[in-house]
Amino acid sequence: MTSVVDPLAATCPAPLTETTHVLLGHGSGGRLMAELLADLGPILGTATDDDAAVVAMGREEVVVSTDSFVVTPRFFPGGDIGSLAVHGTVNDVAMMGARPVALSLAYIIEEGLPIDELRRLTASVAKAAAEAGVRVVTGDTKVVGRGAADGLYITTTGFGLRLPQADCCGANGEPGDAVLLSGPIGLHGITILSTREGLGFETEIATDSRSLHRLVAAMILAGGSGVHVLRDPTRGGLAGALNELAAAAQVGVEIDEIAIPVPGPVAAACEMLGLDPLHVANEGCLVAFAAPDVAGDVLAAMRTLPEGQQARRIGTVTAEHPGRVLMKTPLGSARIVDMLVGEQLPRIC
Amino acid sequence: MTSVVDPLAATCPAPLTETTHVLLGHGSGGRLMAELLADLGPILGTATDDDAAVVAMGREEVVVSTDSFVVTPRFFPGGDIGSLAVHGTVNDVAMMGARPVALSLAYIIEEGLPIDELRRLTASVAKAAAEAGVRVVTGDTKVVGRGAADGLYITTTGFGLRLPQADCCGANGEPGDAVLLSGPIGLHGITILSTREGLGFETEIATDSRSLHRLVAAMILAGGSGVHVLRDPTRGGLAGALNELAAAAQVGVEIDEIAIPVPGPVAAACEMLGLDPLHVANEGCLVAFAAPDVAGDVLAAMRTLPEGQQARRIGTVTAEHPGRVLMKTPLGSARIVDMLVGEQLPRIC
Repeated sequence: MTSVVDPLAATCPAPLTETTHVLLGHGSGGRLMAELLADLGPILGTATDDDAAVVAMGREEVVVSTDSFVVTPRFFPGGDIGSLAVHGTVNDVAMMGARPVALSLAYIIEEGLPIDELRRLTASVAKAAAEAGVRVVTGDTKVVGRGAADGLYITTTGFGLRLPQADCCGANGEPGDAVLLSGPIGLHGITILSTREGLGFETEIATDSRSLHRLVAAMILAGGSGVHVLRDPTRGGLAGALNELAAAAQVGVEIDEIAIPVPGPVAAACEMLGLDPLHVANEGCLVAFAAPDVAGDVLAAMRTLPEGQQARRIGTVTAEHPGRVLMKTPLGSARIVDMLVGEQLPRIC
Repeated sequence: MTSVVDPLAATCPAPLTETTHVLLGHGSGGRLMAELLADLGPILGTATDDDAAVVAMGREEVVVSTDSFVVTPRFFPGGDIGSLAVHGTVNDVAMMGARPVALSLAYIIEEGLPIDELRRLTASVAKAAAEAGVRVVTGDTKVVGRGAADGLYITTTGFGLRLPQADCCGANGEPGDAVLLSGPIGLHGITILSTREGLGFETEIATDSRSLHRLVAAMILAGGSGVHVLRDPTRGGLAGALNELAAAAQVGVEIDEIAIPVPGPVAAACEMLGLDPLHVANEGCLVAFAAPDVAGDVLAAMRTLPEGQQARRIGTVTAEHPGRVLMKTPLGSARIVDMLVGEQLPRIC
């Protein structure tokens, strides 16, 4: 007979060891990173609930998001650092209920990078931008010496305009909201890891990296301001995203394990490597909190698009256990879904 | 007796050796970089005449500029990589005749960077932004392993709104325009180089790194659309900037050697190192082309501000020798001022 433990009574992880130097784990999208940003944030006076900001520019409110991409390897099944740099920033803009309009592009290149590779990656940036309907409007190129970078780092900054009916942000979750997920999880992280380490799964799967703004537009059209929250669960995975959203709105989140689509190769890789698919990075799916009266329409709208064809409801936002994410197992028990403390997979994006 | 050579008859440098890999010189702001960008530019469909773009966002035209900063060392007399990352992007936005409004900030951090240093640099970003009256609205943090970067790289992207009377861009130079320079040249480049190499000049000088948008606003107020061109001569120095502007508008530029303010320590360092001060990077001065009927008023307005106190006219835009920059020496002869082919000082910004 197993002992029954109330998951809510479990204590938080012990306070982190004081660190004086930046660790790889600080870049993970996990708890260490949250601490670092909380430390630096007040200096800058920036909020951290969302991956994008809304800035009043004259008569318009412009949505802005920036991301540096340091993924290794630079080429992987289904994408490369160039397309990823477009999709990642397009999606961060889109998650504010916005239509992305333009991108800026900054390269930091290590001396010795083959120019032909730079040309291929730039063509990939151009293709991904054209497919997303955004323009690359300005850029910068810096070259550092051998050993002062690792091939190529790309920083993209995206600008967009909010859709007229949109009123979503990370802190808008409300008890009763349906938790919707647009597609299977774990594909990006496992593809990168498997390609890097030659584990063999990369022959069966590819990154899910793609632009999600058309999916967002369809959801907003169907649900309007009833679409409370949109978030792409990248670094930190679905678990990280849901924890951030639960904390931001001080609501609880309950998800059903059985409802969460984990592709076979992702499950197998996670099993082999001791990873939790909920913590693995995604680059082509989103999670949404939608008011109960529009959730059905939003879900139906999602399923009309290829990137939302496998969309489903995976849970509910609750007033109970604010700031916490619980997962119901098929056996009827529940466990806390926590953020990772540090780094699971470095340089995943 | 010296032979007299018509400088315009001098041939261009021989075609560059075909390179298949990126060289340090590709990041210099010189001829190699221009070739690389010309190669990549058509893929992206972006223009390269200006360091910023004007993007229609709904009812507003938003000026956007992005820059990665990889300067070494990270701290130097008069500034650090944090303040430089603000000033550099604020200035690129301002050079379009715009008022900078907001910045995004992306860090790529090497594992092992002292957190205290990160805190100091972030405070420096915040201070420079506050002084410039711009908000840091969003950011990103990536951490790469030891050896995969060199401490810290910062990418800033700036957004601004054009001043109502402004109508300047890099291609707007017209024959007859006065060439105005806001202050002494070479301070940034020589400060960085001297600090890095311990040459001793760093005890006498400091970088000129600062925000120039208030100077720009005063100039536009005085000269309106008669201010045809604004450019901050950063990488590539004054020579690089003037060559770009001459090429963009297909005009000639003639400058007087005697009118160009070169601080004593900059001249001494250049003499010792065999550098031309015209090729040394600046981060706190600008060059302008102003219509003859407003040039006097623009110059007077510049001198009312500390950052323009030493402003002066250094030359004239001509219809002759389009695309070329000539410098008249005190002896009455003239020499071609060319862009550098490759890198003079790597990682200067």
